[in-house]
Amino acid sequence: MATAALLAIGDELCIGQVTNTNAAWLAQRCGELGFRVVRHAVVGDQLEDILEELHRLWKIAALVLTTGGLGPTHDDRTAEALAQFFGEELQEHPLVRQWLQEQAHHRGIPLSERVLRQALVPASALPLRNPVGQAPGIWIERDGKALLALPGVPAEMQAIVTTAAWDHLRRFRQQLGGSVVTFRTLVTAGIAEAHLADLLGEPASVLPDGVELAFLPSVWGVRLRLTVHAPSWDAAEQLVEQARKRLLERIAPYVIGEGDISLSQAVGELLRQRGETLAVAESCTGGLLGATLTEIPGSSDYFLGGHIVYSNAAKTTFLRVPEELLRRVGAVSREVAELLAQNVRHAFGATYGIGITGIAGPGGGTPQKPVGTVWIGLATPQRVEARHFVFGTDRAANRHRAVAAALTWLYRLMKGMEPQ
Amino acid sequence: MATAALLAIGDELCIGQVTNTNAAWLAQRCGELGFRVVRHAVVGDQLEDILEELHRLWKIAALVLTTGGLGPTHDDRTAEALAQFFGEELQEHPLVRQWLQEQAHHRGIPLSERVLRQALVPASALPLRNPVGQAPGIWIERDGKALLALPGVPAEMQAIVTTAAWDHLRRFRQQLGGSVVTFRTLVTAGIAEAHLADLLGEPASVLPDGVELAFLPSVWGVRLRLTVHAPSWDAAEQLVEQARKRLLERIAPYVIGEGDISLSQAVGELLRQRGETLAVAESCTGGLLGATLTEIPGSSDYFLGGHIVYSNAAKTTFLRVPEELLRRVGAVSREVAELLAQNVRHAFGATYGIGITGIAGPGGGTPQKPVGTVWIGLATPQRVEARHFVFGTDRAANRHRAVAAALTWLYRLMKGMEPQ
Repeated sequence: MATAALLAIGDELCIGQVTNTNAAWLAQRCGELGFRVVRHAVVGDQLEDILEELHRLWKIAALVLTTGGLGPTHDDRTAEALAQFFGEELQEHPLVRQWLQEQAHHRGIPLSERVLRQALVPASALPLRNPVGQAPGIWIERDGKALLALPGVPAEMQAIVTTAAWDHLRRFRQQLGGSVVTFRTLVTAGIAEAHLADLLGEPASVLPDGVELAFLPSVWGVRLRLTVHAPSWDAAEQLVEQARKRLLERIAPYVIGEGDISLSQAVGELLRQRGETLAVAESCTGGLLGATLTEIPGSSDYFLGGHIVYSNAAKTTFLRVPEELLRRVGAVSREVAELLAQNVRHAFGATYGIGITGIAGPGGGTPQKPVGTVWIGLATPQRVEARHFVFGTDRAANRHRAVAAALTWLYRLMKGMEPQ
Repeated sequence: MATAALLAIGDELCIGQVTNTNAAWLAQRCGELGFRVVRHAVVGDQLEDILEELHRLWKIAALVLTTGGLGPTHDDRTAEALAQFFGEELQEHPLVRQWLQEQAHHRGIPLSERVLRQALVPASALPLRNPVGQAPGIWIERDGKALLALPGVPAEMQAIVTTAAWDHLRRFRQQLGGSVVTFRTLVTAGIAEAHLADLLGEPASVLPDGVELAFLPSVWGVRLRLTVHAPSWDAAEQLVEQARKRLLERIAPYVIGEGDISLSQAVGELLRQRGETLAVAESCTGGLLGATLTEIPGSSDYFLGGHIVYSNAAKTTFLRVPEELLRRVGAVSREVAELLAQNVRHAFGATYGIGITGIAGPGGGTPQKPVGTVWIGLATPQRVEARHFVFGTDRAANRHRAVAAALTWLYRLMKGMEPQ
């Protein structure tokens, strides 16, 4: 079985000073190569702990990838651990010495003893050139298994994997033979995880054999990931396509795209295709809807701008919400949401206007309008409407949910669907 | 020994679709509580793999924290794994049922059978309320060890740890005894890591014995973390206080606060103390400055609102930037930044106005104005000024840096200091 395991080495990771972003990047590359990643582990700089993890992961997986601990200082113990693990001596490798010399020469700096420590690798190891730094990668094959040690600096780790290490990884994967693994992700919006699960029914009865389904919920929506194990890439592709169709038969109206697409990207692409534009009026979200829309490069093609009307006075001055109305129905109301949407649409001359007004919390709630109450208005050239939501009690989550709800509604409207 | 191990559960983590950011956050909290984190692990949704990791980590550590796999769908297997691991039945817990009912009622939606699955916990478990979602935390103590299972959604995980779980973790830590560890964090803004290190000098010569110093850089500034190991809380408190004073002697002008304080919070507190207000005009940040300011509860006391003037037409219509000026000097210029700041200040009747205009990237750069070029204007009752920044090539980082630079400038201005 083509399994892989990842081991990140470093006290800074163990204590949480640095997030281990290398693991996700490496796991994705492993997936592309057809390895099934079965474990990630993080361990500190203690030699005995590193050895313990190497022994464990070498048993579990056909390929072990380590990151970190290859630098020139006293707390870099990976090469030493590998030498002990494989029962070999550490030797200076002439190729690595040459690379380090060339690099020092290129930079016009002397080659220190400390830098040269990075040329010490286990005797049977194949060093892999580091095109952007000093510490080389280390490749070792033994008993039909393989180990690749990489530096912890993400740019260096990535550079080695995509250049010198790639062919070794591919060849080793082919040598292992057996089934391949492939993935497909459907991105949904406007439907809760539990409701989606109900619509889909029991995965075992819906999906072809060999296909697994996972739910990945976030505040923006639920992503559905299909994982396929098959004897060949062709078979995997057929299976995943079959599974994708079966899912779409049940939930197509909620699917906004595939892969890495975000909700603001999906909305942006539709607006661009239709040659339409958007302006926003934000109260409780304070600019978060605008910030989310403008995360996408090229959003100036369809996003014109907006008004952040955090105070009541700003609502009156910039979006002509009558003071009398604010007194009578309150800022968090259908009427105000509709006016915000309609008037910001007019002010910017946009196709669509969105208005958001709500009580993000933690303060400001009342029995009639508890924390989490949000009114969202949506104005089109034909009409204006507002909808009422009650989210939870967490300020940050409420603001994100309001933005997600507004974008989902606009997305569904452009697709000719009922609101979520 | 007060050791801790972290186990993240989920195929999406194993295959690298999602980065395990929970681990670093939890490891930091463990450190604050005086636990030494010795392992992180990630495993997929397969029951036997989860059990294998539970057995291993339970041997290594006094406290095991798991994240993920507590939701309502078929791939959520953590509660089941815990029941098997501890040799107990899964039972519906009346408290969790009540929480789920209250929440469904609050949101005005029916309570489905599927949602109720999240009330199933091992018989001896203490459920911990999830203040922002459904799946509760699960606390189990056995043979002088403890296990805390948390949902994988970061906001939910964090909310449970900082509310219901915190006292259990503290009590359990005290019960374990041994030397204590304490932390203090100084938050700086407006100074680069290397410059800060130069000002501080060699940590060993500056800090008392037993105190370690770590630099935690982010786009918002550099946090300095002091770590103290001592035989008692009193001794630790004395040492950390002594170290804190020595740092402040050297870098006080750059310190905006301690602990978890954010830059927008520090700015907000100053504005509130001074009874002053702020309005913003955003082009390349598209609402991110407003969104950042309004992350803070109570920000309506000092933040009045703003204009998102993403298009040139919006700059002209809402902030009276002459078309002729835009043609002559371009939207990304000192003149436009100053006008945005001055005119948004006037429009909202605020004490201060901030204007941001720049090229976030990846497109839109020229040799004269490369990607990352940002002009920030700051208007006060006395005068208006603009400053020029050149950040990097990453769109998201450039937008965050622009917001951080603007807030840092305003903070320093209110403190009577020169700009950063």
